[in-house]
Amino acid sequence: MNPISKLLNIKYPIIQAGMVWCSGWKLASAVSNAGGLGIIGAGSMYPDVLRLHIQKCKLATDQPFGVNIPLLYPNIQEIIDVVIEEGVKIVFSSAGNPATWTSVLKAKGITVVHVIANTKFALKAQEAGVDAIVAEGFEAGGHNGREETTTLCLLPMIKQAVTIPVIAAGGIGSGKSMLAAFALGADAVQIGSAFAVAEESSAHPAFKNKIISAVEGDTKLAMKKLVPVRLLKNEFADAVSIAEAGGADRVRLMELLGRARAKAGMFEGDMEGGELEIGQVSAMLNAIRPAKEILEEIWTDFKSELARFNSLHNELDF
Amino acid sequence: MNPISKLLNIKYPIIQAGMVWCSGWKLASAVSNAGGLGIIGAGSMYPDVLRLHIQKCKLATDQPFGVNIPLLYPNIQEIIDVVIEEGVKIVFSSAGNPATWTSVLKAKGITVVHVIANTKFALKAQEAGVDAIVAEGFEAGGHNGREETTTLCLLPMIKQAVTIPVIAAGGIGSGKSMLAAFALGADAVQIGSAFAVAEESSAHPAFKNKIISAVEGDTKLAMKKLVPVRLLKNEFADAVSIAEAGGADRVRLMELLGRARAKAGMFEGDMEGGELEIGQVSAMLNAIRPAKEILEEIWTDFKSELARFNSLHNELDF
Repeated sequence: MNPISKLLNIKYPIIQAGMVWCSGWKLASAVSNAGGLGIIGAGSMYPDVLRLHIQKCKLATDQPFGVNIPLLYPNIQEIIDVVIEEGVKIVFSSAGNPATWTSVLKAKGITVVHVIANTKFALKAQEAGVDAIVAEGFEAGGHNGREETTTLCLLPMIKQAVTIPVIAAGGIGSGKSMLAAFALGADAVQIGSAFAVAEESSAHPAFKNKIISAVEGDTKLAMKKLVPVRLLKNEFADAVSIAEAGGADRVRLMELLGRARAKAGMFEGDMEGGELEIGQVSAMLNAIRPAKEILEEIWTDFKSELARFNSLHNELDF
Repeated sequence: MNPISKLLNIKYPIIQAGMVWCSGWKLASAVSNAGGLGIIGAGSMYPDVLRLHIQKCKLATDQPFGVNIPLLYPNIQEIIDVVIEEGVKIVFSSAGNPATWTSVLKAKGITVVHVIANTKFALKAQEAGVDAIVAEGFEAGGHNGREETTTLCLLPMIKQAVTIPVIAAGGIGSGKSMLAAFALGADAVQIGSAFAVAEESSAHPAFKNKIISAVEGDTKLAMKKLVPVRLLKNEFADAVSIAEAGGADRVRLMELLGRARAKAGMFEGDMEGGELEIGQVSAMLNAIRPAKEILEEIWTDFKSELARFNSLHNELDF
């Protein structure tokens, strides 16, 4: 049996990424009910809001689901307490050092998966005792590694470095790209952008429409002097681009970013002034559909592409 | 039969990329003799030097080989004449508009393949009548597309857009990554970095050693205000980074680049002052070996990974 399906007790080795302003209880429970792992993104939630989402998610599904926790979150202790009190079984941690919190969560019987973008942090996470890691490449939406290593180059390095299961992320939104990830040694995939446009995603409809209209080259890794983040091009992203090309420093970038810009864009629908986080794979997305339909299409395509490979094997065997 | 193996009359659907200062007749003939397609990189050759390389390559192999021609080359007419006069059968064109020269080459019975990094140019190349295209992702070494689309995201888009065969490039240096490219729909792969460190590569030994010592994050896409190029980090690349972070304009970047810096680095061995073009896959390379050994290892791994997929197919079939 697939090691991630077994570890997380899910039917398909497909995980919906925890995404700020997109993945609340509605999306997470829809994905979990469809046989993948749904994840509530705590990054955009106050502790009491997160508690409500977890409670609603438990009512909406009897299947496993997880919570994504950015470890640099200001109220991290409160978030950890909520997760433990509410009996969450799976935590995906990111953006921070897993050494501090992994043992706390594991002591409560929680399965812990940590998101990394380079070998150094993959090894640190393994040492901290996590059960699996997500290896996320340059093409992913939102916050991203400084090395700019793409999924195609990152996966084989991570697989070589660690012994725990590896989940591939970044650039995956179809059966074909899921198959490519498995070719690189992935045990499962984590998919963000393709689920950001699900009907159950809490992203503003205007953001979903902008994502499905996006074409290649419409996202760009920005804010490299702060924390690199992949953004969909709009007036705000263009202003950042111009500032960066002109040599803007951290202070200027922080001024430009201001406050609550991600919420304004992704949740409230300010398509020009907002910060819109999405992956390169957005160029291939063109419909808003139920999460179940998205997940099943990826899985069906993955299996038929895998079957195609069986015949390719025979064809090449000369 | 594989459409690219058939088109180019080669045994394995593996193409060695034309690389400035690395791929002369020695590397090209070694790869062709081993069953792949060797390519002479005309980008670093005067027309009379190219003629000599073609003549030597013809003596060194009776297998098909190609010449890579950057179409923006200043002496492009002379280069085209040399290729036609010497009876070259295969041209890989890049860096320029294929509309001008494709028909000239095709009229002489030459197979033409064009390198692109986005859908727009893929369609232009197809319209110009090329026989196949190379789709090159962000992780590739040397000159690169402005959209920064990674191979994982680029391949499915290109396959959807064109009807001619597609060769994947960027981030491929092993059987695993070759398999991933095929999962994405590639008909063949073009491999640069892994052959830059072949014994037969004309790269300076110091450059080869620096490539096999490279770790993740050691390459970076630079010179974005001129033509984006992926460089191995050294004093020169660091100076470019600092200048770019400070807002350096095109004129300043051209000053920094100066003249003949690629030759100084890659061919003459100036490891700090030279311009060193290499892909992200360099982080996974760790030996200088004969081209035949490199090619055969990739092919053997590709086939065994493909066999692994057959069992994966059974395992997932619940």
